[in-house]
Amino acid sequence: MAEQLRVKVAELADFISSVFVHCGLMERDARITADVLIRADRRGIESHGVARLQRYVDDLKKGAIRARAEVKIVKETPVSLVIDGGGGMGQPITYDAMQKCINKARQNLMCFATIRNSNHYGIAGYYVLMALREKMIGISLTNTAPLVVPTFGRNVVIGTNPIAIGFPAGKERPFLLDMATSTVPRGKLEVYARKEQPIPDSWACGEDGLPSTDPVKMLNLMISRGGGGLLPLGGATELTSGHKGYGLSAMVDILCGVLSAGAYGTAVYGQKNVPAGVAHFVGAINPDAFLGLAELQRNLDNYIQMLKNSEKAVGQQRIYVAGEKEYEAEEQNAETVPLEPKVFDNLNRIGQEFGLTLSLA
Amino acid sequence: MAEQLRVKVAELADFISSVFVHCGLMERDARITADVLIRADRRGIESHGVARLQRYVDDLKKGAIRARAEVKIVKETPVSLVIDGGGGMGQPITYDAMQKCINKARQNLMCFATIRNSNHYGIAGYYVLMALREKMIGISLTNTAPLVVPTFGRNVVIGTNPIAIGFPAGKERPFLLDMATSTVPRGKLEVYARKEQPIPDSWACGEDGLPSTDPVKMLNLMISRGGGGLLPLGGATELTSGHKGYGLSAMVDILCGVLSAGAYGTAVYGQKNVPAGVAHFVGAINPDAFLGLAELQRNLDNYIQMLKNSEKAVGQQRIYVAGEKEYEAEEQNAETVPLEPKVFDNLNRIGQEFGLTLSLA
Repeated sequence: MAEQLRVKVAELADFISSVFVHCGLMERDARITADVLIRADRRGIESHGVARLQRYVDDLKKGAIRARAEVKIVKETPVSLVIDGGGGMGQPITYDAMQKCINKARQNLMCFATIRNSNHYGIAGYYVLMALREKMIGISLTNTAPLVVPTFGRNVVIGTNPIAIGFPAGKERPFLLDMATSTVPRGKLEVYARKEQPIPDSWACGEDGLPSTDPVKMLNLMISRGGGGLLPLGGATELTSGHKGYGLSAMVDILCGVLSAGAYGTAVYGQKNVPAGVAHFVGAINPDAFLGLAELQRNLDNYIQMLKNSEKAVGQQRIYVAGEKEYEAEEQNAETVPLEPKVFDNLNRIGQEFGLTLSLA
Repeated sequence: MAEQLRVKVAELADFISSVFVHCGLMERDARITADVLIRADRRGIESHGVARLQRYVDDLKKGAIRARAEVKIVKETPVSLVIDGGGGMGQPITYDAMQKCINKARQNLMCFATIRNSNHYGIAGYYVLMALREKMIGISLTNTAPLVVPTFGRNVVIGTNPIAIGFPAGKERPFLLDMATSTVPRGKLEVYARKEQPIPDSWACGEDGLPSTDPVKMLNLMISRGGGGLLPLGGATELTSGHKGYGLSAMVDILCGVLSAGAYGTAVYGQKNVPAGVAHFVGAINPDAFLGLAELQRNLDNYIQMLKNSEKAVGQQRIYVAGEKEYEAEEQNAETVPLEPKVFDNLNRIGQEFGLTLSLA
């Protein structure tokens, strides 16, 4: 882990949202987007945090993300929504969609929204956290740029398409699963390339579609679009059940891109300098649809304790529950958030253009 | 593949349902259960087919499955159900629940049911097929006997907890993902034990919680409950993302056992000679909740073709879509179904007690 600096959460939020306002976003959309990014850093998911600011700024400047997109409700029922994001920022589009789902779930017990013509929406789990705050079950899925090779394929066709789902507990922290359906994200290969270490053979395959343990070669192939790519959860073969990760990734793409009549597979980020067409699926379920919140919380507490109290493997001290590490990180980063020096410098370089400065905590 | 005999589907259905009627089931429940089992054999999932008849018969005889269970609707809303199966056969309980979901989804666009106090329900995909027949999206989850070790654990706490989800296509066959959340089922270890071949290290771990490649040792440990067990999809470590399979398994358990206030984790099959307390979650979504059937079918056809037409890995001729192999098997086994000679003999031995004979096609 590199040396880390710390900045105040409140100041970082002001800084990030100011940058977005300078890029043309409305104040509220800028605030929402900043909150999604900072929440990722607070939860220890730096890959999806403020380190991505440059990319969003670039996309806003060249119109690949529309700062003032017209978001349309294409279809609305008591329990569902189809939304067209108009090529806007993924975060406010999805925030609003999830808020509508929560409101409808309060009235009608559940609601699901499929969303097309959006953009990168940050961590999938953010929108689940919105439902959890309202003591509801939340779900959030998104397709992504095609980075993953289907089982028995050799080219990227599907995304890392994450699945996030959360359930409110009582005394315990919520259960919050937030996982890409590839074995690992591309960033993990970069870490191993820097360390000059071989990667496990379930992470990536080469231009022949066969697994490789060479992270440098795999990254170069991905950057040059020379074939090969990340492998689905389970790896390259049916022997290790890579077809299951592939199936889950396709499921996400269907609920997002196919169901919304938006972009899916290779069509996501299919053209340069135009909106990427990322598609999402979010939803909220009111526990009153089943046995109510108190009963859910009581049973989920027991379930989580059963998992955590189970005997540990040799060399292990803890069994974790989905989301637990991220909640612990978030609690540690309540007031200030850690940033790598390189990220801190990049933020200030971006801010310079708009006369904005970020200082250390 | 061992030598296989073939029997007529219609005769097998009569035979299996007659056995169940002799064990106390009502004719309709017996017919439904037979159909679920034979559908598995037709779809090439022999592990969940009529080969399991002996186990169901044994459980019915000792009261571990109640032949005439009182199934209660604990809670009902326009879009949800909580059902108590009363310790009955999993197949008719879940068939009825899914049928109710489909009926409600026709009226109210979607419905989900969580079901407690049930038993082994066969292939998860069967209930999704019911929704697909009605041109709806279907989902089916179940918890199972604890056979899987959580990440960093050493004892079985969670089940192989399958996820099945399906979407109706137009010209293409439906997309039907039906996957256990463990890397493999126990049956795969048995195959490798017979072949005296080592297993991949993502399949099972020993009593120390560390992965093992010895299938015989792993099976003996599982049978003696000596610790160790199957590994979640992704294997034993976070390096290969075993925590994702573990998270998915827990998600299934929460939607089934926790949400229904039923049995979960080690409580499933927790006591001998009483109902196992298996819990399920099924649901149906009407495409009219989103953009309607025709739009879904059109986009899903395109998506499936995109996957299938993608370039193949070296040595591969086809990229499969979830469910495709099973649909092809089912079409081949429309009139007759293949059975291993051992299974055929076992069925006749079971039938003998009730004066029933099964003949070859």
